[in-house]
Amino acid sequence: MRTIEWKDGKVVTIDQSRLPHEEVIIEMKNCSEVAEAIKSMKIRGAPLIGAAAAYGLALTAYYSRANSKAELLAELEQCAETLRKTRPTAVNLFWAIDRILSKARSVEGDVKAVVEEVVEEANLIAEEDVEANRKMGRFGARLIEDGDTILTHCNAGALATVDYGTALGVIRAAWEEGKKIKVFATETRPKLQGARLTVYELMRDGIPVSLITDNMVGYVMYKGLIDKVIVGADRIVQDAVINKIGTYTVAVLAHEHNIPFYVAAPTSTFDLEKTSSQVIIEERSSQEVTHVLSVRIAPEGVKVLNPAFDITPLKYVSAIICEKGILRPKETNFELKLESLNLAGFQ
Amino acid sequence: MRTIEWKDGKVVTIDQSRLPHEEVIIEMKNCSEVAEAIKSMKIRGAPLIGAAAAYGLALTAYYSRANSKAELLAELEQCAETLRKTRPTAVNLFWAIDRILSKARSVEGDVKAVVEEVVEEANLIAEEDVEANRKMGRFGARLIEDGDTILTHCNAGALATVDYGTALGVIRAAWEEGKKIKVFATETRPKLQGARLTVYELMRDGIPVSLITDNMVGYVMYKGLIDKVIVGADRIVQDAVINKIGTYTVAVLAHEHNIPFYVAAPTSTFDLEKTSSQVIIEERSSQEVTHVLSVRIAPEGVKVLNPAFDITPLKYVSAIICEKGILRPKETNFELKLESLNLAGFQ
Repeated sequence: MRTIEWKDGKVVTIDQSRLPHEEVIIEMKNCSEVAEAIKSMKIRGAPLIGAAAAYGLALTAYYSRANSKAELLAELEQCAETLRKTRPTAVNLFWAIDRILSKARSVEGDVKAVVEEVVEEANLIAEEDVEANRKMGRFGARLIEDGDTILTHCNAGALATVDYGTALGVIRAAWEEGKKIKVFATETRPKLQGARLTVYELMRDGIPVSLITDNMVGYVMYKGLIDKVIVGADRIVQDAVINKIGTYTVAVLAHEHNIPFYVAAPTSTFDLEKTSSQVIIEERSSQEVTHVLSVRIAPEGVKVLNPAFDITPLKYVSAIICEKGILRPKETNFELKLESLNLAGFQ
Repeated sequence: MRTIEWKDGKVVTIDQSRLPHEEVIIEMKNCSEVAEAIKSMKIRGAPLIGAAAAYGLALTAYYSRANSKAELLAELEQCAETLRKTRPTAVNLFWAIDRILSKARSVEGDVKAVVEEVVEEANLIAEEDVEANRKMGRFGARLIEDGDTILTHCNAGALATVDYGTALGVIRAAWEEGKKIKVFATETRPKLQGARLTVYELMRDGIPVSLITDNMVGYVMYKGLIDKVIVGADRIVQDAVINKIGTYTVAVLAHEHNIPFYVAAPTSTFDLEKTSSQVIIEERSSQEVTHVLSVRIAPEGVKVLNPAFDITPLKYVSAIICEKGILRPKETNFELKLESLNLAGFQ
């Protein structure tokens, strides 16, 4: 299931806010349409947001009437500024923007050459994401045993990426290897990505899935129904994994029940120069909590907290699966450093 | 706010499934109407279910055309049977039914005398519940400090009882004593009793309340925003507290963050002959999970788990507040025995 695509000067994606009831395809033709789609979560999921931002810049380049390279770079910078303001937490957004800008700056040639290189780089980011997910799937599947029941939170599937998925990529890979696994999906309030998207993806693939509300996680673990947890990530920093609100709650529960807690994310999600205290946790509109879809559930005027993400310290993380391999804590002192990616961090 | 009342041969209550949007008063005139209201959760909350069941029997007695005491007792037994089948987990239901039946059997006199005694006993159960909540409030308020922020799950308020509430009774009592407290209410999927009922009650009383989704509990604790947790109970057994689904998740998180976790419940909720393995955890309709209110959120045909309650082992419970006082764990070996209620269990 390909989630985003470049098609003759249009960026084609599916409106995730309408799933699973309606499969509405959107075609975007400029930077602001892409920015709006990210902001309103028609497009969501850290790796997909990265690819979408790259394509937003590609659209700017493609339709530019700039007469000079400097003029085009200025237009790209302006689009980048718009995109950077959409959502603050997932690092893939910033990573993809920087990669495209730096490619554009480095091109030696005329405006046309820059346009071509920018579009190509955006396509490359998308392709690399799919490839990273496939690799992650193969590495991660080693951690999954035949008969396992796996709990996942939110949607870290094909819909959160360009294709295949991170956490769901690992689940898919294990399933494709013939392992008879089952999945528990948490509904993931407030935006219900688990109930709407993860269930939709897994049912399409025929992978057995049971839906639970977020507050049932403790109960299903207490009852011994869960063997492993796998989630995605929006940003991995030196000391923590930042992911969809509720991830930390699941991680603490997994820890209490001695259930392995795995994070699957490409290295484009890593931001190892930072610690969790330096990351902005996006606070979204209170209406997402007072309403479910469009239905009001709480009295008018109630005060609401709505952090879109939370912070899971690495002590709760059993391993991080990326496209380069499986990163495990070093004894109790889990220090996730770039070096360890190439060294002792791997098994 | 009185939730249930006997009024000239009618039992008057508020339809809690329609709150907070509509305040619909229901008048019930026979046992099956009461049973239906309990089953469909128009009436919910362990202590209120107990009082409602007592009133269901009172209605049967009041409108009975029995010619003999034996005939009336048979009618009461039949109503009791209907009521017992409504919901299996909250023990107050069975406790109230047994108390009314045993009162009816013990009356020495004619049919009219039995009818009068049954109605009086039902009223007494209701009055005692209010009195128990007030006492619990006074005991529990000792545990609350000025400036505390308290997290509560589901609704253990006036609406879960005849009046005043158990967990919210403690919060109300602390507030009435002039303690400046704040409350975090979890929305409590699938039936949203937190978002719909707890927020409604606290806003009416002017007690500051913030609404969060269930999966934000870890985050607000991690951020140091919560000083104490207070919840109600549907059944307290030798080894555990059985309460609304999600309670166990909150308890584990409180434990991990060294936050006191208090349970407020009248002794009518205690079932100390049993252990948690002997209690039936009600599994409710999958539609409660696939839908929010009447809106479908998940793809058709998805498998669902919907346990209405979970089990919190006593090691996660800092204290139980009942109308007789505050029951604390004895060192690490917290054995909740009836004797301890009158002896060393109290402080």
